[in-house]
Amino acid sequence: MQTLKVDLGERSYPIHIGEGLLDQPELLAPHIAGRQVAIISNETVAPLYLERLSRSLAAYSVISVVLPDGEAHKNWETLQLIFDGLLTARHDRRTTVVALGGGVIGDMAGFAAACYQRGVDFIQVPTTLLSQVDSSVGGKTGINHPLGKNMVGAFYQPQAVLIDTATLNTLPPRELSAGLAEVIKYGLICDEPFLSWLEEHVDALRALDQVALTEAISRSCAAKALVVNADERESGVRATLNLGHTFGHAIETHMGYGVWLHGEAVAAGTVMALEMSQRLGWISAQERDRGIRLFQRAGLPVIPPAQMTEADFLEHMAIDKKVIDGRLRLVLLRHMGEAVVTDDYPKEILQATLGADYRALAQLKG
Amino acid sequence: MQTLKVDLGERSYPIHIGEGLLDQPELLAPHIAGRQVAIISNETVAPLYLERLSRSLAAYSVISVVLPDGEAHKNWETLQLIFDGLLTARHDRRTTVVALGGGVIGDMAGFAAACYQRGVDFIQVPTTLLSQVDSSVGGKTGINHPLGKNMVGAFYQPQAVLIDTATLNTLPPRELSAGLAEVIKYGLICDEPFLSWLEEHVDALRALDQVALTEAISRSCAAKALVVNADERESGVRATLNLGHTFGHAIETHMGYGVWLHGEAVAAGTVMALEMSQRLGWISAQERDRGIRLFQRAGLPVIPPAQMTEADFLEHMAIDKKVIDGRLRLVLLRHMGEAVVTDDYPKEILQATLGADYRALAQLKG
Repeated sequence: MQTLKVDLGERSYPIHIGEGLLDQPELLAPHIAGRQVAIISNETVAPLYLERLSRSLAAYSVISVVLPDGEAHKNWETLQLIFDGLLTARHDRRTTVVALGGGVIGDMAGFAAACYQRGVDFIQVPTTLLSQVDSSVGGKTGINHPLGKNMVGAFYQPQAVLIDTATLNTLPPRELSAGLAEVIKYGLICDEPFLSWLEEHVDALRALDQVALTEAISRSCAAKALVVNADERESGVRATLNLGHTFGHAIETHMGYGVWLHGEAVAAGTVMALEMSQRLGWISAQERDRGIRLFQRAGLPVIPPAQMTEADFLEHMAIDKKVIDGRLRLVLLRHMGEAVVTDDYPKEILQATLGADYRALAQLKG
Repeated sequence: MQTLKVDLGERSYPIHIGEGLLDQPELLAPHIAGRQVAIISNETVAPLYLERLSRSLAAYSVISVVLPDGEAHKNWETLQLIFDGLLTARHDRRTTVVALGGGVIGDMAGFAAACYQRGVDFIQVPTTLLSQVDSSVGGKTGINHPLGKNMVGAFYQPQAVLIDTATLNTLPPRELSAGLAEVIKYGLICDEPFLSWLEEHVDALRALDQVALTEAISRSCAAKALVVNADERESGVRATLNLGHTFGHAIETHMGYGVWLHGEAVAAGTVMALEMSQRLGWISAQERDRGIRLFQRAGLPVIPPAQMTEADFLEHMAIDKKVIDGRLRLVLLRHMGEAVVTDDYPKEILQATLGADYRALAQLKG
C-alpha cells in the first residue's frame, strides 16, 4: 500500500492506494467520528462491492443508498435520494458519508455531504480509474444542470480516500480507457517523463497489470495533489488540470450527458488543445501527433463528433466556468509537459482549431 | 450609519446599518468584483425596493430573479429558478448574488451563491427585522426538505451586509414582532442589560421608532457577531443562538412551514426553554414570567399549538440538527442573560416541560 497526504492545513487527508484495501477496516476507522455511516453507491457497483465494504464497517450503524448508474442521473432528483435516505434513517450531523463508485457517485455523495445539515464527514472509495486519479482528489463535488455541466456544487474535502486497485478488474475496458485520458493529461500538463513512462506502459495498463496501474494511479494522484496543494481554489495553476475540458465539456453538453464518457470527451478535447497549441507555434506537429498517438493507443477517441459545428462549440463554451467576464480562457500547452491558462490568443486560431480536420490527423496516426 | 465588522480572517465582512442605505451605491461597489450582478428577491419585496436597488447598481450588468414569497417556497424547486436565471443570463463565476428580502430570500440566495459554479460572491440586503438581526449574520444558508427544516445548506459568508432600517416601514406588524423574538433572544442568552433596555423600549420598537430600531438591530448584530466570531462553525457557544429553536422547529415542522412565522415559533419555543430552565431550578418562576411578559408585549405567541402532543414534539425533535448520536442537546438558561447547551438533564423534566400548562402561564401575565 502507498499513502499520499494531500496537505491542506486542517483539511488535510490521506490517499491510500493498494490491492484489497476494501477489506481493511483499520484504514477507515480513524476517519469516522460518529456511529452512523451512509454508503452511497450505484446499481452497477453495489452488487460487486457493497457487501464487502459494509463488512469492513460492521462496527457502525450503516445504511446504504443505491442510486441509478450514470452521468445522466447526476442531478438534483437523484441527489434527493441521498437526503431522503439520511433523513429517513435519522442520521445526524456526525454521520459519515462514504462514496463507493465512480466520479458521478463521488461528486454526488460529496455534494450531499457538503450540504447535509450544512456539512458532514465524507470518505471517498473510488472504484473507476477516472475517479481514482481525478475526481477523488481536489475537493470538487456537484451535480449537473440542464443548462450546463457541474454548474451546482461545492468545494468539499474528504476525510480520506481509499483506492483499492483490485476494483479495476471489474471495470469495463471502455471506462478504463476513459480513465487513462486523465492519466495522460497529467503527463501533458506537468510531467514529461511520466508521458514517456506511459508510452512504454500503456499496453500493460490496458491489460490491467496491477504494478503498472498502481504506479500510474500513484503518480497521477501525486501530480494532482501537488497542483491542489499549490492552489486549492482554482485561481491559477489548478486550472491547468482542465486541459481538454473546455472543448470536452462542449462535446458532452452537445451530445447529451452520458453519450460520450467524460474521459472520452476529455481525450478528443485535449487533441483540440494540442492542435491549437501547435497552431500557436508552441508545440511542433510531431509533438501534437505524439499526444494523438498515445490517446489512440489508450483506446480513446481523438476526433470530435462529426455533427458538431464551430458554432456549436462556441455556444457551449460560452457558459463554461472558465469564462471570466466574457473572455474565453483556455488551457493550452506551452511545451509538452507544461500547460498554461490563457485568454491571450488570436480569435482566428481558435476558429481554425474548431474547424480543423481531425479525421485526417487521426488517420495519419492510425 | 453604523458599521460593524464580522471578523472571520480572510472571510471578514462589514455590516452597514442605517436609514436610506439602499440609495448609497458607494456602500456596494467595494464588494462587487465582476461586472455581473444578480438580485434575488420575492414578489412582495421586489415591487417595493427592487427598482431602487437596481438604480444603485446601474454601473453593472444586472439581472433580477423574483421568487414566490414565503417559507413554503424555501425548497429546491424555487432554488432552481435562481440557477435558471443565472445560467440563462450566462453569469460566470465572478458574478455577485445580492439577496433583497427576508430570511428565506437570504437563505436561498446565499445557498445558491454557495453552490453556483461551486461558489460566487454574495451580498445581503435584508428587509425584515428578523433577517436583519439573525439570518444575515453568521453564514448559515440553506433550504428545507420535506422531512426537516434547513436540512440542506452550507456555511457561506457574504461579502457585505447592508441594512436599510427604513425598509421596516413597509413590514407587516406581525413580522416586526417575529423579528423582535430574535432580538429578545439575544438579551436572554448573553446580555441581561439589553433585556432591561428592551423592557423600556419594546413599545417604541413596535411603533417603528427609528432610533430605537437602529439601536436594537445594532446591539443584536453585535451580540451575534461576537458569538459567531468566537465559534464560526457551531461546535460550542454558537449553539446558544438556537435558544427556543429546537422546540420552535418542532412547532414549525408539525404545523407545516409558513403557518407559524419562524419568530413566532421561536417565541413559543423559548417560553418552553424558560419553563424547562425553571423546572431545573436554574431560573426563578419570576424570571421565567419576566421573559413571557416581554414576548407578550412584543406581540408574540407564548403558547405552543394546542393540538401538539408530547409525542409530536419528541418525534420532530429527534431529527433536529442538534441531536448528536441520539442524545437530545437543548439550549437552556443557566441564568437570565446566560444560556448553556446541555444534554445532561432528567428526561422527566423534558417530558414535564412538554406537558406543561402554557395557557395558564400566559393568562397569569395577560
